[in-house]
Amino acid sequence: MEDYGRFLALLASALLVGFVSVILSLVWVFHYREGLSWDGGLGEFNWHPVLIITGFVFVQGIAIIVYRLPWTWKCSKLLMKFIHAGLNTIAMILAIVSMVAVFEFHNAKNIPNMYSLHSWIGLTAVIFYSLQLFLGFAVFLLPFAPVHLRVALMPIHVYSGLTIFATVIATALMGITEKLIFALKSPAYSASPPEATLVNCLGLLLVIFGSLILWMASRPHWKRPPAENAKILRPIGATPDGTEVESTLTKSSNADKSDLRSNTEAARKQNIKTFDEAGQRSTM
Amino acid sequence: MEDYGRFLALLASALLVGFVSVILSLVWVFHYREGLSWDGGLGEFNWHPVLIITGFVFVQGIAIIVYRLPWTWKCSKLLMKFIHAGLNTIAMILAIVSMVAVFEFHNAKNIPNMYSLHSWIGLTAVIFYSLQLFLGFAVFLLPFAPVHLRVALMPIHVYSGLTIFATVIATALMGITEKLIFALKSPAYSASPPEATLVNCLGLLLVIFGSLILWMASRPHWKRPPAENAKILRPIGATPDGTEVESTLTKSSNADKSDLRSNTEAARKQNIKTFDEAGQRSTM
Repeated sequence: MEDYGRFLALLASALLVGFVSVILSLVWVFHYREGLSWDGGLGEFNWHPVLIITGFVFVQGIAIIVYRLPWTWKCSKLLMKFIHAGLNTIAMILAIVSMVAVFEFHNAKNIPNMYSLHSWIGLTAVIFYSLQLFLGFAVFLLPFAPVHLRVALMPIHVYSGLTIFATVIATALMGITEKLIFALKSPAYSASPPEATLVNCLGLLLVIFGSLILWMASRPHWKRPPAENAKILRPIGATPDGTEVESTLTKSSNADKSDLRSNTEAARKQNIKTFDEAGQRSTM
Repeated sequence: MEDYGRFLALLASALLVGFVSVILSLVWVFHYREGLSWDGGLGEFNWHPVLIITGFVFVQGIAIIVYRLPWTWKCSKLLMKFIHAGLNTIAMILAIVSMVAVFEFHNAKNIPNMYSLHSWIGLTAVIFYSLQLFLGFAVFLLPFAPVHLRVALMPIHVYSGLTIFATVIATALMGITEKLIFALKSPAYSASPPEATLVNCLGLLLVIFGSLILWMASRPHWKRPPAENAKILRPIGATPDGTEVESTLTKSSNADKSDLRSNTEAARKQNIKTFDEAGQRSTM
């Protein structure tokens, strides 16, 4: 791997920033707020920031870069797909539980649901994230989707994944803003009490975490190398850069392999046309 | 251009969504708020959302994709660089004026400055944006920077540009959240009065605008084709995909060309190594 040391340094930074963010969210709810509970009170609401930051930001971020960890390159692509899908499923479950906590808290306190921009964009992000997970599972993990569909959907899958991730962080920042304005009364948010400073720093860390993940996910020279048997689909004269999509296809299952073999000629032509798009697996 | 129709449809959508966002910001401040003025009152504050949405979101978004407009490909790269830098300069000036409006409003009303997460991230974004503009001008527009520096900085320039753009939209969403909570009292934001619905829709449009710009900016097959004379720096066996950085270099000035000639051999070696990175000019 090129720049292995730099990758490790960035990975360590991302893990540290993500881990500190989770810790700060716990410090926030336990030291400054009402802790955690599941009784319709503020302790139930507090699950919302903790689970969003842990699952929807930190776990999702790790899921995005899991293919890039060089020590996983000896593992099968199928195993890595399961880990990628598994981490995203954990993130989705935590996001849904965190939303249930807010709805239950609102209902117990007769606070309207879904009135704020934070709730509109947050719910949209969860819906798109679930769709992304379902489509990713159906197209890239199950062995039924034809090659041309996988090639066509891969750039959309990558773009959607990164855009949803960025939107989730933006939504978390809106949520932090809302909560600090509502919760801090004397002293108010504008008086910059220690809680406000701590949570503002948490918001900054989320932006730094997102920026690190997006940088690591978008360096083409840090992507997982193509598998050996991916060569069958490599167009003449193409660099290995464009074989990522093919390599994600050739290992998924035996049925998939047979599908690939029967489609080799069609896929070869298709690949020449969509070579640029396929290359985006790692350049987005 | 591949998929010319699709590009035009997305461009028209982005322009429409951006234009409607600017109109909605004006409807917000003129129909629901105090209009625009420059007297330390709420009318002065209102310049903040209008100028941020017009300049820091809409104009910056257009600046990002200006190289991708196919009818500009017959223009010189130098001219396009001036347009790119000029639009970004306009966006920066509007962002700074919009910040002055808020500071003056706060000072006139004895409201503290820089206490919120919105202000922390917003000011950071403006500082990074100014740095990006200054560095971009010094390295890519002025004819003094050596080839290896330009090649090394191009992926960072592209990544920073897109990340700052996404951060600006996230900051605008936080600002909308703050303003609606502070300004709507009877009925409150949670009662979903028409103003809240309108401004929530404005926030959604900003997310859609950002998503469209990021999609258009990250499709490799929609990038400006390399210039003819860029061939001198193309490594053996490379596709034209990697020549974008070189093409941005060879047209900037006569001094630049002479600089390039003297560095051709070094650059050729450098390009083989950094070929992947150079390709990101358009794939990020």
